Amino acid sequence: MKNNLHVGLTVRLFTDQKCFGPGVAELLRQVDETGSLRAAAASMEMAYSKAWRIVKTAEDCLELRLLDTATGGKRGGGASLTPEARRLLEAYDALCRDVKAYAAERFTAAFAFYDALP
Amino acid sequence: MKNNLHVGLTVRLFTDQKCFGPGVAELLRQVDETGSLRAAAASMEMAYSKAWRIVKTAEDCLELRLLDTATGGKRGGGASLTPEARRLLEAYDALCRDVKAYAAERFTAAFAFYDALP
Repeated sequence: MKNNLHVGLTVRLFTDQKCFGPGVAELLRQVDETGSLRAAAASMEMAYSKAWRIVKTAEDCLELRLLDTATGGKRGGGASLTPEARRLLEAYDALCRDVKAYAAERFTAAFAFYDALP
Repeated sequence: MKNNLHVGLTVRLFTDQKCFGPGVAELLRQVDETGSLRAAAASMEMAYSKAWRIVKTAEDCLELRLLDTATGGKRGGGASLTPEARRLLEAYDALCRDVKAYAAERFTAAFAFYDALP
């Protein structure tokens, strides 16, 4: 397409408020990778307090626990995804892939006129 | 769906940078309604300079003129959509409706597990 014009989507979940989107999804992926919310926040150059608040908001409005946190012991302070968080993240990622592929296809048809402009 | 969970999408167009999205689309709709970029900006509680910059960025990266501006005369300072802007806005709005309807349908299937959680 002319000028490499293409479509980009942001997919968010709402209840009566915004509760889940690309930011919290990335946080959960990073928790899964690093085993800690603090490390996840740092990897996104985000304050720990902000990361905590984003996860808490999502947990409250989804009424789901997303993180299992361990205190003390060898792995003190660690966090891991609950089974529900893993299921949610999988569903969100699959929905994003699905809708983005559809949008890219429909975009090409809807904007054919743009490509044809002089 | 439990907790009225639903999906929301933001559709944007990119070249090598973000160039068109809900904000500039709403500005164009308001210009069409009010006949002036200044009135359009005011209706969105946006500074005129910001509105002008948003339209200019979209024009530059799409390589399209979006606004016809009249200076002087009885309707001095007025603005109207170019035929290309109208075509672009129609295509964008249609793409948004199409992709949002698809996303809502796919969301229901992808998040059936959430509805079924205890």
